[in-house]
Amino acid sequence: MADEGRGTVNGVRAGIVATGSELLTGRITDRNGPWVAERLGELGVEVSHLVLVGDRGEDMAAALRFLAGDGIDLVVTTGGLGPTADDLTAEVVAAETDRPLELDEHMEKVVGDIISKFADRLRWDADALAAANRKQAMVPRGATPIRPAGTAPGLAVPPHPERGGPTILVLPGPPREVRAMWDEALASAPVQEVLARTSPWTETHLRLFGVPESEIAATLRDVGAGTDLTPLEITTCLRDFTLEVDLRHAPGSTAAATARDAVVAEIDRRHGRTIFSRTGQTIDELLFELLDGQVVATAESCTGGLLAGRLTAPAGASAHVAGGVVSYSNDAKADVLGVPRELIEEHGAVSPQVAEAMADGALARFGATIAVAITGVAGPGGGTEAKPVGYVCFCVRTADGRTLARDPVLPGERGDIRERSVVLAMHLLRRALTGEGEPAPA
Amino acid sequence: MADEGRGTVNGVRAGIVATGSELLTGRITDRNGPWVAERLGELGVEVSHLVLVGDRGEDMAAALRFLAGDGIDLVVTTGGLGPTADDLTAEVVAAETDRPLELDEHMEKVVGDIISKFADRLRWDADALAAANRKQAMVPRGATPIRPAGTAPGLAVPPHPERGGPTILVLPGPPREVRAMWDEALASAPVQEVLARTSPWTETHLRLFGVPESEIAATLRDVGAGTDLTPLEITTCLRDFTLEVDLRHAPGSTAAATARDAVVAEIDRRHGRTIFSRTGQTIDELLFELLDGQVVATAESCTGGLLAGRLTAPAGASAHVAGGVVSYSNDAKADVLGVPRELIEEHGAVSPQVAEAMADGALARFGATIAVAITGVAGPGGGTEAKPVGYVCFCVRTADGRTLARDPVLPGERGDIRERSVVLAMHLLRRALTGEGEPAPA
Repeated sequence: MADEGRGTVNGVRAGIVATGSELLTGRITDRNGPWVAERLGELGVEVSHLVLVGDRGEDMAAALRFLAGDGIDLVVTTGGLGPTADDLTAEVVAAETDRPLELDEHMEKVVGDIISKFADRLRWDADALAAANRKQAMVPRGATPIRPAGTAPGLAVPPHPERGGPTILVLPGPPREVRAMWDEALASAPVQEVLARTSPWTETHLRLFGVPESEIAATLRDVGAGTDLTPLEITTCLRDFTLEVDLRHAPGSTAAATARDAVVAEIDRRHGRTIFSRTGQTIDELLFELLDGQVVATAESCTGGLLAGRLTAPAGASAHVAGGVVSYSNDAKADVLGVPRELIEEHGAVSPQVAEAMADGALARFGATIAVAITGVAGPGGGTEAKPVGYVCFCVRTADGRTLARDPVLPGERGDIRERSVVLAMHLLRRALTGEGEPAPA
Repeated sequence: MADEGRGTVNGVRAGIVATGSELLTGRITDRNGPWVAERLGELGVEVSHLVLVGDRGEDMAAALRFLAGDGIDLVVTTGGLGPTADDLTAEVVAAETDRPLELDEHMEKVVGDIISKFADRLRWDADALAAANRKQAMVPRGATPIRPAGTAPGLAVPPHPERGGPTILVLPGPPREVRAMWDEALASAPVQEVLARTSPWTETHLRLFGVPESEIAATLRDVGAGTDLTPLEITTCLRDFTLEVDLRHAPGSTAAATARDAVVAEIDRRHGRTIFSRTGQTIDELLFELLDGQVVATAESCTGGLLAGRLTAPAGASAHVAGGVVSYSNDAKADVLGVPRELIEEHGAVSPQVAEAMADGALARFGATIAVAITGVAGPGGGTEAKPVGYVCFCVRTADGRTLARDPVLPGERGDIRERSVVLAMHLLRRALTGEGEPAPA
């Protein structure tokens, strides 16, 4: 992971506070913080801290004070807006900004209408209902309530009237509600006032497969030696075995545009063959488009169905996925895919020859136009000197006999090898679909 | 999510700082913080804050100062230990604890040996190599280095020599390395000194499938009305469609043991049938044991191979997994699994009848002793009034004809429906393997 030439191009810095004791047990992963961070990034806001705290008032207050003391302009909180006693966010934010909580009668009615619909299902009694209703309609003086997507309104709270400090956007905990309320939250007057001081970034997204991060780092260092990259924020990130290179800069900066063009030109020159997307499109999205009009089938051994599972993940996959065979045992390879037993005996179940026969079997069994086969040693056992753990044979073959085969030794442990094999197979499919590969022998 | 009766039973509080600018772009989800939090919880350490910061020295220092000021006893940091200039953690921690960085010659050799193995592959030059080597072997005075699992050693740094403050455990960023180094990190003298002030919780782990969280919450409320639950920490958490109920208390407390027994007895009485584990064992681990001596095959439509992928995830799965067919198209169901075309025409591809025929096909094709079939409408399109999105037919059948079938309408969106179907299928397999199901007709 590198983050080179990072400069504060825009002035607005944000912090995120996700509340919920369950986030600190490690059982539940916070889904709001990263989502909010990505949205803020698109708006040109730099997120400097993401803090997870439990449902304790003093911990939450400490986090808010920490961010205020760190010169943050905008704090987004999620969670702690429910009707129960341990939902403390509104109260804590009100206290920290010296804004007394006041009943917002309009919100009381809005919340009341929503809660009454749930009341029967939740078997709440009338008293509990009225109390929950009133608690959720309390708004710090001067703050703007945000219409609830569930039962809890959000709050856009301006800075402390005398001391200043950050604007605080208070959102509920359920990820669905955060997403549903986001646009209205951004449109609120206190948040608009902060966002007016920044502008969305201009972004370039390169996606590369098959180049180590260290080589891109070297390329960036070399470009940086001749060109000033400070007006540019460059992030390189390895996700799903894909190298993501994102270039961002403030709009309208000529220096930034020059720097960006220099970086893209040099990556192109050195690593152009490994770039598969210039729009940020994932390999899954790209394959989905390329498979239009095709019928694809899979034959998987060590990946055990994960490739088929991934190809069928997008809605509409049935238009081009016929199916696949998971031939985990040798019998399955022979009986279900028709791989000759002699071939397995002669070359071993993990061999380019068997991968090829598996692809042929998948083509034939499913009447496919293109098939991909994977057989390998995922480990931890089963490796030999000639075929160590991580040795995986791939074969992509089209109905007209074009073939693309590879047999690398992949690094990592069992899970890594399986996941990496799936991604590599998807890239081989992509290459075959864009015309690479050996033609059938005449 | 409930977190009832939480009390600070032990005295030790921890904070976690995960570093990496990529964590604040929202692109990458931090996998270390929750894992470390869960491990610390098991040791009886209460985690009060989890802070994500970018690779900027001042932000990292601000986070450390915030936690020190908040009375934290132990800080665990992850990330920022690599060889490049933006890897700053060791430097920042050294400065915050006033402990000058010194070259540890033994670590220099250890790191050197490791790096030299990678060097060829990474095509680093000798100068870069030596610099990286030296940077990673710098240890704050008085700190204990922790043997690297990748190339970066960890550091167990005692509190500031005069000011005191937290002990800081510094770990690298790659999740695999954090996990590999954990035991040795805990065994280091500075960390042992903190842990000596606490003791591991006494824990009870119940795992339930097929009961809504709201019912468990109601049961807990009812028990709490008659028994004092305050000495007990009860966490309920829905993960992987499984309800996890964890009861923790300080060892040796009679009041806590009484409370725990009351809770377990009442959950047993009301929801006993849905408890599948009393040890925290996952359905994956349980199935792996139950499948010993069996030969299992899968036939999947809407789940597209995800069930087979999951059954083959553990090392050693080849002992009992023969394979499976992903029959995404109707042709595949007929041609590869031998489902009669008339059956598909008469009842539809998503029907209990077709699920049964798919299971029979899988049994026959793979010579299996038990097979599981899944066919359903994962959506978003393809739903009808009679068979809406979420309608999924399951059939588990053994070679001797015992059958367990279900056809629920599952909630959620496409991805949820697929994942939930996989988990439900695993539970049906478990039930069939423990003797449930209709016997074959005489």
